[in-house]
Amino acid sequence: MYTIGIDLGGTNIAVGLVNEEKKIVAKKSSPTLTNRKIEEIIRDMAELSLALIRENGLSEKDVSAIGIGSPGTVDGKNGVIIYSCNIPFDHTNVREAFKAYTSIPVYCGNDADVAALGEAYAGAAAGCDNAIMITLGTGVGGGVIVNKHIVAGFNGAGGELGHMVIVRGGAQCNCGRKGCWEAYSSATGLIRMTREAMEKHPESALWKIAPTLDDVNGKTSFDGLRAGDPVAAEVVKEYVAYLATGLTNIINIFQPEVLCLGGGVAKEGQFLIDLLMPYIEKERYSKDVPQTAIKPAVLGNDAGIIGAAMLGF
Amino acid sequence: MYTIGIDLGGTNIAVGLVNEEKKIVAKKSSPTLTNRKIEEIIRDMAELSLALIRENGLSEKDVSAIGIGSPGTVDGKNGVIIYSCNIPFDHTNVREAFKAYTSIPVYCGNDADVAALGEAYAGAAAGCDNAIMITLGTGVGGGVIVNKHIVAGFNGAGGELGHMVIVRGGAQCNCGRKGCWEAYSSATGLIRMTREAMEKHPESALWKIAPTLDDVNGKTSFDGLRAGDPVAAEVVKEYVAYLATGLTNIINIFQPEVLCLGGGVAKEGQFLIDLLMPYIEKERYSKDVPQTAIKPAVLGNDAGIIGAAMLGF
Repeated sequence: MYTIGIDLGGTNIAVGLVNEEKKIVAKKSSPTLTNRKIEEIIRDMAELSLALIRENGLSEKDVSAIGIGSPGTVDGKNGVIIYSCNIPFDHTNVREAFKAYTSIPVYCGNDADVAALGEAYAGAAAGCDNAIMITLGTGVGGGVIVNKHIVAGFNGAGGELGHMVIVRGGAQCNCGRKGCWEAYSSATGLIRMTREAMEKHPESALWKIAPTLDDVNGKTSFDGLRAGDPVAAEVVKEYVAYLATGLTNIINIFQPEVLCLGGGVAKEGQFLIDLLMPYIEKERYSKDVPQTAIKPAVLGNDAGIIGAAMLGF
Repeated sequence: MYTIGIDLGGTNIAVGLVNEEKKIVAKKSSPTLTNRKIEEIIRDMAELSLALIRENGLSEKDVSAIGIGSPGTVDGKNGVIIYSCNIPFDHTNVREAFKAYTSIPVYCGNDADVAALGEAYAGAAAGCDNAIMITLGTGVGGGVIVNKHIVAGFNGAGGELGHMVIVRGGAQCNCGRKGCWEAYSSATGLIRMTREAMEKHPESALWKIAPTLDDVNGKTSFDGLRAGDPVAAEVVKEYVAYLATGLTNIINIFQPEVLCLGGGVAKEGQFLIDLLMPYIEKERYSKDVPQTAIKPAVLGNDAGIIGAAMLGF
């Protein structure tokens, strides 16, 4: 038996056929083209799925479920995508809409949640009932898995771990609050800290790595640290301390078996985790129990497809 | 069919017989006497349970489960109480130990988690699959219910919502971190803020309500506010703002259908909630979805017994 996972993004619809070993055996994709009616986007998702089935010599009865991971607020229970910033969903019953194309049952989830589910079934947290994935990208995204199910709250809007205030009255966050974890621990936050340090320190070797402030990215200060620049070391130290504060909060709240880190900044992998651990080990609340392991996410872009394919379980 | 709930505290063992309507129909209790062997405390819990069954004209086959809520870290899956600050558990398999007394299956949970379960089954959050209870007492306790089950993490130590840093580098918390929510939003935190304000303001009417600093409790500043004292109003305003910061974090993370407030400070009830709501409404992340209701907990001390009795479900 197979399942299909759809990673619906603002740019592309990526569809994957997933086997019982939770491996993607075939993929198809097409542009999302968000400036059109939602019905057309749904039709493309359905037709890509059916084409993938056909082209792999299967029939609809070989596929037990289709799962869709979408940005935004999702009512997973009812298969409804309530709202998404870039894709024109408006309380759209996707499960119902798919019935015009196929009788395969359809499930929906938020994209960050679904990526966490992918890592919990087939990635860094494979075999764990309780896992969390934190994505350190433009923002700080979170997906929480408890007993192998997504925790999204009664309204589908939960899991906004990045919008947890850790510095009351601190840096302005896009959400309107001040001092959210996201304002410090996203790639955007790291870039801001790096630029501020460069402006204060014209002598820093960071200026060799990023000749202008526009060249700064989430890797710049880590590269500076590895090149032996003390200003970069200070930026990384500050960034890591903020990141550890939020991660320790999450551990105290959830005590997941594995907490995995994905997104741009997490490409630093074990190097970043080794910097984080002393802070977390010192600050976490429960010390006399088995401890949460922090791991780099391993599925990359496939997490969304695999996680979506697992929604039907 | 009945279930039995045991609220094991540092002072008393309270045992209740709970019917299918989730009401306590009879109670028994005896002192915990924590300075003795854990085997004796377990024996008392079992004997109180059996006496309660007998005295109510029932037999063991009328009782489907015994649940125990205990302070500390609990491995609910295996019926093991790992550690408790005041009661001499040490990875004690309580489920196994009860077999010497009865064949009724035994379940265990942390006391704050179990109280939340009680409110979710039969109290302020009755009928809700997703609910959270926050206890504003000596500390800030938390119990998280998702899909009618306790979220305690893979090691039983989760739900430490009070040990979420909201003011990085802020007030010292007993846990070793600085700026934990508990340091600001517990009754202890409120008492500290009230005393500091009184010391700064000898003219404040708070000195009439609490003639010495030792007389200050979690109600003092609220009484001062109601008596029209501007210093008290300022203390309450500050306290409420900190409390709202943590509550909004919790809502953004979990989006429970109901978040109920228990413990000493929550005796202010709807008065406190009316003060909180403007902060929460302004700051919560997802505004275009059904919203979490904030309610006073209603079961009081019975929450522990009823919640423990629900552990077997």
